[in-house]
Amino acid sequence: MNIAILGTGVVGQTLAAALAEKGHTVTIGTRDPAETMARAAAKPPAKVSFREWQQANPGVKLATFADAVRSANVVINATSGVGAMSALEDAGADALGEKILIDASNPLDFSKGMPPTLTVCNTDSLGEQLQRAFPRVRFVKALNTITAALMVNPAAVNGGDHTLFICGNDADAKATVKRWLGEWFGWQDIVDLGDITAARGTEMYLPIWLRTWSALGSPMFNVKIVR
Amino acid sequence: MNIAILGTGVVGQTLAAALAEKGHTVTIGTRDPAETMARAAAKPPAKVSFREWQQANPGVKLATFADAVRSANVVINATSGVGAMSALEDAGADALGEKILIDASNPLDFSKGMPPTLTVCNTDSLGEQLQRAFPRVRFVKALNTITAALMVNPAAVNGGDHTLFICGNDADAKATVKRWLGEWFGWQDIVDLGDITAARGTEMYLPIWLRTWSALGSPMFNVKIVR
Repeated sequence: MNIAILGTGVVGQTLAAALAEKGHTVTIGTRDPAETMARAAAKPPAKVSFREWQQANPGVKLATFADAVRSANVVINATSGVGAMSALEDAGADALGEKILIDASNPLDFSKGMPPTLTVCNTDSLGEQLQRAFPRVRFVKALNTITAALMVNPAAVNGGDHTLFICGNDADAKATVKRWLGEWFGWQDIVDLGDITAARGTEMYLPIWLRTWSALGSPMFNVKIVR
Repeated sequence: MNIAILGTGVVGQTLAAALAEKGHTVTIGTRDPAETMARAAAKPPAKVSFREWQQANPGVKLATFADAVRSANVVINATSGVGAMSALEDAGADALGEKILIDASNPLDFSKGMPPTLTVCNTDSLGEQLQRAFPRVRFVKALNTITAALMVNPAAVNGGDHTLFICGNDADAKATVKRWLGEWFGWQDIVDLGDITAARGTEMYLPIWLRTWSALGSPMFNVKIVR
């Protein structure tokens, strides 16, 4: 498949490396590829600059948001929440078309110190804001409730026996994403929470996720729904 | 033990019945006991009026918030979130003293239709509001992330192997509550999320919990943290 990943941070890098390794054609989208490649410093929590990362992952291409999206079969939004809307605006509604977009972003606001707060919650969500702005795009909110290393390797904890939440307005898109996440990474227990308004739930889960990370001392955990 | 439970709804009833059965002295606190007993209709989701419930549970006493709290070793707040502050004000700071108060309430606002929103979240929480209003009370937020039947009987799903989150400012109070929840109900996996600001996390978990309930068709589930 031809996969566009928006965002050059740890989430984008992790997804891109894992999908390229599976043989997919992967292009990371960024606002200004030349600027991204010129950056010498690592952007925490990344440990190396994007340029260094790219040298270690030469199979992954870098392009503008619009160029990455245009040729893709599927788009994954791995930008920071505060950058998501402008990344999609840069990509443009025409290039995005009616594509499936897996939205892994969270509306985290780090500007007021730690722990981060959410820029939107309770009566709205980033997932809904993006869906309203790009009504033709088939958004599937997924992967935003776990750390990047676990997104692409659920088997790293409890033999992969834990739960991923998805939501979105398009049932076919959700069924397709469910299948892809199984094929790509081995996800087995995927709970469909309903339409895109359920993004309020998966985004508002971030505060308890962050506190659990602090309590356990590691982000390598997830929840398993037991019934 | 002498246990005061604030709130006459399903959560209060379920906790009271389970604790009375264990041999504890249990008093349910309410604003106006005579009015509560005079009510003929059930308050959904309760299936019977409080009067009928009380006839089936004659060991549980009913008193004003202040009378229930005054003689108690521990207080459990099982009011609705919107009723929590006034219940504690009725009980009074003197009666509450430095008691341990297990806060099982959630700031759910049903007034704008379903699903409910939160009356406070993101940069504050009900747990913090109550702690600020009653600084001497040793609040331990707990039990607010599961349905009432599961609070008192974790073994009802997955043999009891799932996670309860607690938080609060007083380490001794948390250790005591952890022990009580094990002795009373059999809770084994209790994750301490830190100080009372973590109540933001456990309260903001409600939207994903409610959507998961919808997806599964039953509230008899919980999350287990796997690592």
